[in-house]
Amino acid sequence: MIVVQKFGGTSVGDVERLQRVAQRIVDTRRAGHDVVVVVSAMGGTTDELVDMAAQVNRRPPQRELDILLTAGERISMSLLAMAIEALGVRARSFTGSQAGIITDTVHGKARILAVTPERVRDALGDGDVVIVAGFQGVSRETHDITTLGRGGSDTTAVALAAALEADVCEIYTDVDGVYTADPRLVPAARKLDRLAYEEMLELAAQGAKVLQVRSVEFGRNHGVPIHVRSSFNGSEGTWVVPQEDMVEDAIISGVAHDTSEAKVTVVGVPDRPGVAAGMFTALADASVNVDMIVQNVSSDGRTDISFTVPRGEVEQATELLGGRLEGIGAADVIVNPAVAKVSLVGAGMKTHPGVAARMFDALSRAGVNIQMISTSTIRVSVIIDDAHVDDAVRAVHAEFGLGADAIVEEQGAG
Amino acid sequence: MIVVQKFGGTSVGDVERLQRVAQRIVDTRRAGHDVVVVVSAMGGTTDELVDMAAQVNRRPPQRELDILLTAGERISMSLLAMAIEALGVRARSFTGSQAGIITDTVHGKARILAVTPERVRDALGDGDVVIVAGFQGVSRETHDITTLGRGGSDTTAVALAAALEADVCEIYTDVDGVYTADPRLVPAARKLDRLAYEEMLELAAQGAKVLQVRSVEFGRNHGVPIHVRSSFNGSEGTWVVPQEDMVEDAIISGVAHDTSEAKVTVVGVPDRPGVAAGMFTALADASVNVDMIVQNVSSDGRTDISFTVPRGEVEQATELLGGRLEGIGAADVIVNPAVAKVSLVGAGMKTHPGVAARMFDALSRAGVNIQMISTSTIRVSVIIDDAHVDDAVRAVHAEFGLGADAIVEEQGAG
Repeated sequence: MIVVQKFGGTSVGDVERLQRVAQRIVDTRRAGHDVVVVVSAMGGTTDELVDMAAQVNRRPPQRELDILLTAGERISMSLLAMAIEALGVRARSFTGSQAGIITDTVHGKARILAVTPERVRDALGDGDVVIVAGFQGVSRETHDITTLGRGGSDTTAVALAAALEADVCEIYTDVDGVYTADPRLVPAARKLDRLAYEEMLELAAQGAKVLQVRSVEFGRNHGVPIHVRSSFNGSEGTWVVPQEDMVEDAIISGVAHDTSEAKVTVVGVPDRPGVAAGMFTALADASVNVDMIVQNVSSDGRTDISFTVPRGEVEQATELLGGRLEGIGAADVIVNPAVAKVSLVGAGMKTHPGVAARMFDALSRAGVNIQMISTSTIRVSVIIDDAHVDDAVRAVHAEFGLGADAIVEEQGAG
Repeated sequence: MIVVQKFGGTSVGDVERLQRVAQRIVDTRRAGHDVVVVVSAMGGTTDELVDMAAQVNRRPPQRELDILLTAGERISMSLLAMAIEALGVRARSFTGSQAGIITDTVHGKARILAVTPERVRDALGDGDVVIVAGFQGVSRETHDITTLGRGGSDTTAVALAAALEADVCEIYTDVDGVYTADPRLVPAARKLDRLAYEEMLELAAQGAKVLQVRSVEFGRNHGVPIHVRSSFNGSEGTWVVPQEDMVEDAIISGVAHDTSEAKVTVVGVPDRPGVAAGMFTALADASVNVDMIVQNVSSDGRTDISFTVPRGEVEQATELLGGRLEGIGAADVIVNPAVAKVSLVGAGMKTHPGVAARMFDALSRAGVNIQMISTSTIRVSVIIDDAHVDDAVRAVHAEFGLGADAIVEEQGAG
């Protein structure tokens, strides 16, 4: 059996933790499995390197920033290999490039185009534990080192698992698995045993930080079973699996929230074909990541268009649109950074009408005003004032009986 | 004109120094030259990484140690490129592997087998300043990352200069050039303006730390002019050049000393052909670096053989020989770690007899006892008690009138 295990920065944050991770890897190897480990930089390292870069150049060139940041995994991967060898098991570490993680050329958020893990396979064939640097690859076109963006090690792990046809990709983290909501906000939140790729995708895309969205896409596209579990104990975590492996669709799987975006409204846009397209093409060309888009009903041939973007990209978006107001024929650009997105996700939603209405009602009773709404077949998202995010998540979580207590209560009542 | 500039760890020890180095590089570029920069890890980084390795594994596997250590240059090279870009000049950094530094597979002290700097040439063609990580390469056979040993960045620089047919290889350091002796031991020591490769080779091999031995060999074999100069000022340093470019051979160029070795004596070795060969073949197979070897005159068919090795390899050497005493038929192995080597170097020695005798006489007058002697055509080395190394170096330096004062005195007397 081939097992891919991914350990994040907190799991290897100091020598003691690194040694605990090494022991867990050795146990898996001694149980007779072929083990490939993907490791992130030791906790805090990446931030330190970013700080150093900022000291020498306020706008460091992305190519060089990527080279700098990949030093972090180089350190953690070689130390982890040494720690494993200290326990009497042979280990060999490879950079993303050496492990065949081939990407496009978009420095800072490159996409994996192919995985050619010949050296990994050879090392497994020799009986070695293989350690691979997460978060990084090499560009097919320029042969330059690239990074995959925050959380990119998850994607490295799942992509490698797919290429090696591994039996499981274990994502070790500092929580026990995927919860019905962030347990820091909702103490009653319950750990999910199983989740379909589509649900995990929506949860991750809507702010659940436990897995990078692209890693789930890779898992879904290649059918890799993903097991999200704690690096601090041996308990079963959450399995992310194909829809057909779900015994029963829960109506609602969980509530996600995201306070990292801001709302931008372009006021008085002429209601003509092509105007919105022009605006969002310009934003896309500038690599601004637009998330939700809502256009109000037009009156007097004019409309307001609102959308959300990561807070770090607000300045770029408003500068770009501000300079085109005249061309667009719009009146103004207004920014509201103090917003939060709350999303309800569940595969059973498809066959259960009325979920959105019940969510809006619960928010209304909790005194939370809704600014924007967006839905997919298995998700309902709302934009609200970020001061109300805790209340909103708790109200929705309770309304749909997602908590551990709620379930016991229902069972008692049944 | 192609200029290769090498900056060591102290030259890029913090952000401010890094920026000063960037300014110097930019000045060279703006003077119209093609500039290739070889950079070491920021001062202290390599030691920190070695410490971390020791924490997780008392005997870290060399392959993994090499991967770990190369993170140091990755950080300094990308930061330096960023600092140069901040000054408005385009810069691109390359790892040893990317720059085509091809080595053998001896981790920790790999030798450069070839340099294929296609990417460096392309980047120069684009008008970019090129930064290359010193100290590291990639093995031709295993494709693994290798390191060249302490001081390896000098060799990277000279080897690159040779491959690029550069006009000069400038080695920037924290001293003004090559001195007639270590100025910390001999305040009267004088900076040399010019030195032949052979002399520099002997000085470096005998303990002068200003250049790695192999870098000088590369320079000699490929005729690369090496300019050793200060990174803190613009003064001319010391040029290391072919013998034929020396205006006149100085009888003596300088005095080197080395306190990093220990003396090992095998007592009572049978004086038969093949016994010594067997001993030193075994040591070589175990990669123990034997330096001086002296065999005393035999009596009763037995002899004592003494040799020096780096102090870090004494244990290995004695274990190896201790286990073979019976096979060799020798009586004992004795170690003396408290020794120093003092060497007198000068190309003019070839045609001036009596230099060795004059050196031994000076040492005798200074009360220094000689334990071992070894000579080449342009060098005389002695092993002495390391408590006397300062006295010995000063005595020899004064005897041959190498100091600045001494010269003035002689001129005054002439």
